[in-house]
Amino acid sequence: MAEPKQERAVKTREAILHAAAEVFDECGYSGASISKIMNRAGVTQGGMYFHFKSKRALAQAVMSSQQQFVRFPKGEDCLQRLIDLTFHLAHELQNNVLVRASIRLAVEQGEFGMQDDTVYQEWADQIHSYLRGARERGELLPEVDEGEFAQVLVGAYSGTQLYSQISTGRVDLPERVAALWHYLLPGITPPHVRSRLRIVPWEEGRAA
Amino acid sequence: MAEPKQERAVKTREAILHAAAEVFDECGYSGASISKIMNRAGVTQGGMYFHFKSKRALAQAVMSSQQQFVRFPKGEDCLQRLIDLTFHLAHELQNNVLVRASIRLAVEQGEFGMQDDTVYQEWADQIHSYLRGARERGELLPEVDEGEFAQVLVGAYSGTQLYSQISTGRVDLPERVAALWHYLLPGITPPHVRSRLRIVPWEEGRAA
Repeated sequence: MAEPKQERAVKTREAILHAAAEVFDECGYSGASISKIMNRAGVTQGGMYFHFKSKRALAQAVMSSQQQFVRFPKGEDCLQRLIDLTFHLAHELQNNVLVRASIRLAVEQGEFGMQDDTVYQEWADQIHSYLRGARERGELLPEVDEGEFAQVLVGAYSGTQLYSQISTGRVDLPERVAALWHYLLPGITPPHVRSRLRIVPWEEGRAA
Repeated sequence: MAEPKQERAVKTREAILHAAAEVFDECGYSGASISKIMNRAGVTQGGMYFHFKSKRALAQAVMSSQQQFVRFPKGEDCLQRLIDLTFHLAHELQNNVLVRASIRLAVEQGEFGMQDDTVYQEWADQIHSYLRGARERGELLPEVDEGEFAQVLVGAYSGTQLYSQISTGRVDLPERVAALWHYLLPGITPPHVRSRLRIVPWEEGRAA
């Protein structure tokens, strides 16, 4: 009998996280309330407090589930996969409330007294591993420091999506990501590699 | 008698703005209160409401005074001046509470229900004019679109300072700005120009 109970708990936790992401996405942190999230998830107070003790704990969980919410492009680690990831993430930011809420919380966390760079570091680590693959394939210029560029890209991308969100509600995010790559690629990869890279927005249904 | 009265009003407004920036910097938007700002500025309720009707109006004023708070590096419009500006701004973000508060509000504005990209556009315009100077001096590659790159830089810089703030309280911001330029410059300027650009942190007392 232990198995179904555990499964139910996992499902409840997921339902709460999903509802929390929706409410944080709509109302921001200060506008969200535990009771609103409970209602949205259809769980009792007992169910909620079994999994999350506070709004802050919920925000932390939504924030740290960021990578779990994203379906990563498949394929071998290389520059094209990194570029595809950035466009895929732009698409997710436009369409996936879980990703949107978790990034919003990561950006606005100062406003509710948090200073946690874990999720930024996780992205930097993920990108670093793509860049190691790119290095092995001879796609990077000798002077590129993969770890450093991973951090540069995480910072640059965070601000690009923020500016796009404030300017156009992220409608122009894919074009902004393309422009960012346009100016970054000459600094990291030689012309013969650059010429065969596809700098194109993510399309629904493309092999992921 | 009109003159001194007006002068006094200007001074009161400045004192309020300064106090508001301090309180927003320390407490964020939701943690700040009009009364806390009044006490800090040493103004009466009447004085406050003559200038600002609400916390939101105060936040808006602090946000939109951003460029007025920054002392810009002097000199002719060119790439070096743009690079110097980004390092100077890093220094201001570390040391000038007015700049820090206004950028914090610009980043976290979603959390208090604002979506105003004016201050981002103002930076893009300022950078665009530096880039026009750089173009006239033959410092830019033919394929660079000055207006587009200005927007790319504003986005990339915003996220760079955000990541640095969350990671290290902005202690490592100058190094992060240097790394960003390291990867961006090959995409905008030819090697002979690049080799004479100084990518160095701002120093107090340097001719501004």
